Amino acid sequence: MADAQVRPIRIALIGAGTVGSKVASLMLEQAEDLEARSGAPLVLVGVGVKDATKSRPGIPKELITADVPGLLAKDIDIVVEVMGGIEPARTHILDAMSRGISVVTANKELLARDGATLAAAAEKNNVDLYYEASVAGAIPILRPLRESLVGDRVKKILGIVNGTTNYILTKMDETGASFKDALSEAQKLGYAETDPSADVEGKDAAAKAAIVAQLAFHTRVTIDDVYCEGITKVSASDVKAAKEMGFVIKLLAIAERLDDESIVVRVHPAMIPRSHPLASVREAFNAVFVEAEAAGSLMFYGRGAGGAPTASAVLGDLVAVARNRMSGRRGPGESIYADLKVKPVSEAMTSYYISLQVADKPGVLAQISQKIADNNVSIQTVRQDGLENDAQLVIRTHKALEKDLAKTLEDLRNLDAVREISDYMRVEGED
Amino acid sequence: MADAQVRPIRIALIGAGTVGSKVASLMLEQAEDLEARSGAPLVLVGVGVKDATKSRPGIPKELITADVPGLLAKDIDIVVEVMGGIEPARTHILDAMSRGISVVTANKELLARDGATLAAAAEKNNVDLYYEASVAGAIPILRPLRESLVGDRVKKILGIVNGTTNYILTKMDETGASFKDALSEAQKLGYAETDPSADVEGKDAAAKAAIVAQLAFHTRVTIDDVYCEGITKVSASDVKAAKEMGFVIKLLAIAERLDDESIVVRVHPAMIPRSHPLASVREAFNAVFVEAEAAGSLMFYGRGAGGAPTASAVLGDLVAVARNRMSGRRGPGESIYADLKVKPVSEAMTSYYISLQVADKPGVLAQISQKIADNNVSIQTVRQDGLENDAQLVIRTHKALEKDLAKTLEDLRNLDAVREISDYMRVEGED
Repeated sequence: MADAQVRPIRIALIGAGTVGSKVASLMLEQAEDLEARSGAPLVLVGVGVKDATKSRPGIPKELITADVPGLLAKDIDIVVEVMGGIEPARTHILDAMSRGISVVTANKELLARDGATLAAAAEKNNVDLYYEASVAGAIPILRPLRESLVGDRVKKILGIVNGTTNYILTKMDETGASFKDALSEAQKLGYAETDPSADVEGKDAAAKAAIVAQLAFHTRVTIDDVYCEGITKVSASDVKAAKEMGFVIKLLAIAERLDDESIVVRVHPAMIPRSHPLASVREAFNAVFVEAEAAGSLMFYGRGAGGAPTASAVLGDLVAVARNRMSGRRGPGESIYADLKVKPVSEAMTSYYISLQVADKPGVLAQISQKIADNNVSIQTVRQDGLENDAQLVIRTHKALEKDLAKTLEDLRNLDAVREISDYMRVEGED
Repeated sequence: MADAQVRPIRIALIGAGTVGSKVASLMLEQAEDLEARSGAPLVLVGVGVKDATKSRPGIPKELITADVPGLLAKDIDIVVEVMGGIEPARTHILDAMSRGISVVTANKELLARDGATLAAAAEKNNVDLYYEASVAGAIPILRPLRESLVGDRVKKILGIVNGTTNYILTKMDETGASFKDALSEAQKLGYAETDPSADVEGKDAAAKAAIVAQLAFHTRVTIDDVYCEGITKVSASDVKAAKEMGFVIKLLAIAERLDDESIVVRVHPAMIPRSHPLASVREAFNAVFVEAEAAGSLMFYGRGAGGAPTASAVLGDLVAVARNRMSGRRGPGESIYADLKVKPVSEAMTSYYISLQVADKPGVLAQISQKIADNNVSIQTVRQDGLENDAQLVIRTHKALEKDLAKTLEDLRNLDAVREISDYMRVEGED
């Protein structure tokens, strides 16, 4: 037990939504455990909110204030920022750091947009900036990348980091529903918001991809570096085709090291084999699959969102930062020493599934195969089915440059013998 | 990049087997990255071995020495101990600590047997004791428990932490092989040792269970506190019966908090539903499933053994300890403040699958049901099949006290109407 003479660690919470309320109530309920594990009592000094008149169940009324600068002036040691969004969160965080206050945040949007400013302020003021809760909720993924794998070389990361889209894709896979119907169901059940665009267009996943890639490759990555394609165009027939081939469609956040030591970071739907560990990540669960040179394949799985899981990650950081305060030092700061080149998605190596309707006459397959070969793409498998006067061709390519694959699609579309490219999708998780 | 004036961190390695050789070669190959991430060059000063005349591929000859105390006297900062076993590993580690040297070890046997002595010496000499590699190889599980979940309350841990037995059980499940045949195959492929007893009798898993339980519950746990039952009695017919019911048999390391805030730690084979995330952990892979109050269900998956994966975990610890040295402090020490009571397996709550052959005559089912109820056990399902003059009964119980279940089995065995209890096994992962 901590010594009775130990000075308490004074905490200010900014934001009292789902996550903030849970953080506050867990801090009060588990005060004794948190004290024993931190080495000092953790005292919640106040909770900064936009509207102080609103009732906040579980948070004592006298702690609530709309005057955040006033709260930060109260000899605070650690600020927990869970209000989200760029402003005023950034101003509050920078204000706190300039006062020597360490920061725990779950703000993926701000970190992916302007992490450099926050990291520089943390460095300058010699304070901590911890943000485990910003990616994949309760799943410890940043700390393992930052610490456990720090002696290894990460090759590739494949993550399911958005629960809403994974829920929708799971329903489409299980029931054959259309995107629209699966989205409605997700909205009814509270898995998707009324305006679902940040989730279904992949922006939320892209912010997380930037944060994870920066840690994994010791290189500055912002959301502007991330290629982003959502799931709004995934159709019931795509899902069905994947199923028939033994695949499942997931929205993946992918960060990978290329042969020339550059990296590419991208978010898009992809087919993965049903035998892949990520394939069994269903409903609103998240998981991050990491391939490292010495460690091999690792996977981290759990709840990626929700008040309690996110609060668990926040409290883990809070105890770590409190321990650092106690020992008068800060944890490892930002690491971007490797400074690898971040290339656009056109330089990624990937493989495609392409389904096309073609005229069923002699020489068509030869013509198509030639066009594909002309673009430096090689065919892995091809299947042809009769379809009245037409034929359906299903082609799986080997890995090739994304830009060569895009050019291949364009060239195929321009062939007279090709009636339509019905479907195409990237394939991951096969190597 | 580290300043040219920075004093190098001097490392001694003890043990040059599969793991030690890989640690040495990775340290040499990735010296630049390790320096950038640690903040100082990590210099391998020497490698202590029992037999200095043996050739060690990948380790420069001039680094090898049989004089470990002499090596430790060379102004060493960090010792990496990967020789394994109780002695002389313990003597070397305590010697190192008394000289102010921090320790990174993969020695599960020593930690589970005498972790208290090591922790006390680390405390007394103000040095670090890190041991991520001791459990589940490359999978970061100790650091997440120690740091990420430090603000949460762990309820239960279910782990597949022994690759040899998981390989054997996977083969039995896939091919219907007997334990003996699957073991032979594992030995041929190098997944099992010539003397497989530490693995198949559960001792290896029990040591890891003790280490994980101690961290999760902030309570001293040694291998003597762990109930241990291996897989040598798992038969092909057990595996088949599990399969028919939609279950799979795994050797589980289980640590759980009971309602009265005591804990039970146990290793034994158990049936788990095929839909459970642990069911798809196949071959020699490991995984640890954690249920925490706020975080919910988490799973950590990866390679649990082998030179490179274990070396990855060792290097992660090495960088962490090097950073601590640089900032002149130590990481969080042993946390056993909660001091929960560790109860014997008889106090665990579990449920059983029981298959018995009974006389096929009126009143037998009533008699058996009564006997089960008399022991405070309630039946979840029962299935009866005719079998010439006998009948086969397959009973699944609800959760009950292990000691009541054991008494139930004994009482059933003594009933005249019961010809034989063909099979019984604990069931996990259903709640």
